[in-house]
Amino acid sequence: MKRNAFYAQSGGVTAVINASACGVIETARKHRDKIGKVYAGRNGIIGALTEDLIDTSAESAKTIAALRYTPGGAFGSARYKLKGLDENKAEYERLIEVFEAHNIGYFFYNGGNDSMDTANKVSQMAKRMKFPLKCIGIPKTVDNDLPFTDCCPGFGSVAKYVAVSTREAALDVASMSKTSTKVFILEVMGRHAGWIAAAAGLAGQGEGDPPHVIVFPEIPFDKQAFLDRVAESVKRYDYCVAVVSEGARYADGRFLAEAGTKDAFGHTQLGGVAATIADMVRSELGLKYHYAIADYLQRSARHIASKVDVEQAYAVGKAAVELALRGEDAVMPTIERKSDRPYRWTIGKVALSKVANREKGVPRRFIGKDGFSITEACRRYLAPLIQGEDYPPYKNGLPDYAVLKNKPVERRLGTEFVLK
Amino acid sequence: MKRNAFYAQSGGVTAVINASACGVIETARKHRDKIGKVYAGRNGIIGALTEDLIDTSAESAKTIAALRYTPGGAFGSARYKLKGLDENKAEYERLIEVFEAHNIGYFFYNGGNDSMDTANKVSQMAKRMKFPLKCIGIPKTVDNDLPFTDCCPGFGSVAKYVAVSTREAALDVASMSKTSTKVFILEVMGRHAGWIAAAAGLAGQGEGDPPHVIVFPEIPFDKQAFLDRVAESVKRYDYCVAVVSEGARYADGRFLAEAGTKDAFGHTQLGGVAATIADMVRSELGLKYHYAIADYLQRSARHIASKVDVEQAYAVGKAAVELALRGEDAVMPTIERKSDRPYRWTIGKVALSKVANREKGVPRRFIGKDGFSITEACRRYLAPLIQGEDYPPYKNGLPDYAVLKNKPVERRLGTEFVLK
Repeated sequence: MKRNAFYAQSGGVTAVINASACGVIETARKHRDKIGKVYAGRNGIIGALTEDLIDTSAESAKTIAALRYTPGGAFGSARYKLKGLDENKAEYERLIEVFEAHNIGYFFYNGGNDSMDTANKVSQMAKRMKFPLKCIGIPKTVDNDLPFTDCCPGFGSVAKYVAVSTREAALDVASMSKTSTKVFILEVMGRHAGWIAAAAGLAGQGEGDPPHVIVFPEIPFDKQAFLDRVAESVKRYDYCVAVVSEGARYADGRFLAEAGTKDAFGHTQLGGVAATIADMVRSELGLKYHYAIADYLQRSARHIASKVDVEQAYAVGKAAVELALRGEDAVMPTIERKSDRPYRWTIGKVALSKVANREKGVPRRFIGKDGFSITEACRRYLAPLIQGEDYPPYKNGLPDYAVLKNKPVERRLGTEFVLK
Repeated sequence: MKRNAFYAQSGGVTAVINASACGVIETARKHRDKIGKVYAGRNGIIGALTEDLIDTSAESAKTIAALRYTPGGAFGSARYKLKGLDENKAEYERLIEVFEAHNIGYFFYNGGNDSMDTANKVSQMAKRMKFPLKCIGIPKTVDNDLPFTDCCPGFGSVAKYVAVSTREAALDVASMSKTSTKVFILEVMGRHAGWIAAAAGLAGQGEGDPPHVIVFPEIPFDKQAFLDRVAESVKRYDYCVAVVSEGARYADGRFLAEAGTKDAFGHTQLGGVAATIADMVRSELGLKYHYAIADYLQRSARHIASKVDVEQAYAVGKAAVELALRGEDAVMPTIERKSDRPYRWTIGKVALSKVANREKGVPRRFIGKDGFSITEACRRYLAPLIQGEDYPPYKNGLPDYAVLKNKPVERRLGTEFVLK
């Protein structure tokens, strides 16, 4: 019997998460003998819980193809974490109920660590309930902190954005330093992992090239060492470009900028580290500064996406469908690196149980002895991930991104489900 | 007698100021019968005062051509304003002394309002001293606030960057609003003129499209009206994208975010309006927010420059040389718009005395009645300026920007000059 598929986006979106959606939908459409329709969750897993499904079969092939170059989450994503199987069995049962009502036999969950955990639990619950379901995770995170995959779709593009922006802003600062800004600070994302900050290091190639200082969450922040480094850079080059991870913290674990609020996953919401750093530069060194906070611009910047990243995002979406069709369950396709130069990669797979809730930070050997730079090994790892440009089409000077109908699927269950 | 030319960059740099330099140098090289070498000021006019000149003839044609797509100021720029002719005659006399020593007969000054004033005064001083010198201003400012020219090179590219970034970030926020950020704030440049903020309006096309609120420096900030607008947008669309000019101020003239420091021109240094607005959103509306501060990223983003802007930047550099060769003095080439659709423009000129120290804000008829949006007339004005992409070449995933030798010209004066 032909069964439908359900696809949901989870957590913070990226410039290429829709490329994965494109990979899933286009591949499913090539297997109409085995897969019926692809339904998407409106606002991610919430759409499944509330039976608010989107019928992607209402979209033309052209619109689905355009997802490949459209940033954001086309069907809506959600920061909504399902609790443990025993703590909140009702949610899992509800998911299976909705899947059953809509003849869904494939569950594709596109997200980060938390989502891989959820997909794994859904797989377990389906087995307990003897409901035939193939659960496949699709990796996505700008943070690049998923284990077992060499890199994570979403990261390459933010890495490219940050490296390009660092190079460009540094040219600006260098040309003005004589009479204007001496210290430029760029705040980038990366809650616990400094991969994005590390990527800024690609902007420089030789001795003295900016960025002159990178602040990693993996290295406890040493204020004096940082200020010394800034002062030395200004002394030597007349300016200093510092790239600071939002997740930078002191040795005692305190974030440099703690907003004090927590998101749905219980993570502290960060922001404001650039202002904190700028204040140090002003009060301790008396230097003129400017700072930029890239925030969402960095993870939505499809206009400067990495071609490699777009290809990998599409490939994991495609592979997810192929794995499901081969009868796999509770696995996630991975990117396996075969060689650095030339860069060669293939698709592998890993059990969701292994990935779930584990994070991969920047290893110490990728960070210079000084704690403020990247090593050659890091460069070799990062460089391939930002290769190639994959420009979206433009109309009237602006990227012509996909606009979906997002047609709702008629409800079949009479029951309302109240979210926790 | 063949005389040399002197070119200097002034004030904040842009993504395309080097395209103007390229226009000057390439055009001068085509007139070797009349113009000898093109010297550039290291760090702008400071290089002239301190006799620190750069010999651009040491650069290959290829390197000069690469200036067309390289952001920042290739020879260094400066925020250094010469005082009035009578207040500080010594500086003007020194300039003429340096020009004389290096047989300079052409002075090209690439900057904003202040710089046009300076170029005009240098012209006057040269006349007084009977030193033959053609002084031509070349318009440059991301702020688009120069009068008499339809638009200003540098603006179109920052406008494109801001419109593209607003569209992209808005897709991100829209897809997450169900469970995450409801209000996204993007802080953009524009000290007294809201042109850059207005450009964000191009990101939206229909009713309800982001940005939902634009805060202009031209409209006194009404906190309650702003918060009402944000709340209404969140009610209607579940999210709100607000673009806020750094120059936003209250009716009494106070900036929303006053850093309290002043730059060399005596202008208050701004920054931090996004945090101020975010705090209002949190405390008054209790909504989850995120904010980005584009800062230097916006004006150095050559990777997403407007093709029209690049062409115009080059054209005013070229025209400056041609005007000088035609015997013009104390003028600035302008962009004259001939038609909106299709967009047609030519090069005109204006006397520096008219341009000097005057600013052109966004006219009231370009701002919606609500004070938070742009009108159709504004859209018609802005739309052509962001047309076309002009991507730089890439190498290893990064823009391959020009690296100059910046070879110093041997000094001929024994005297040191101490900057005020």
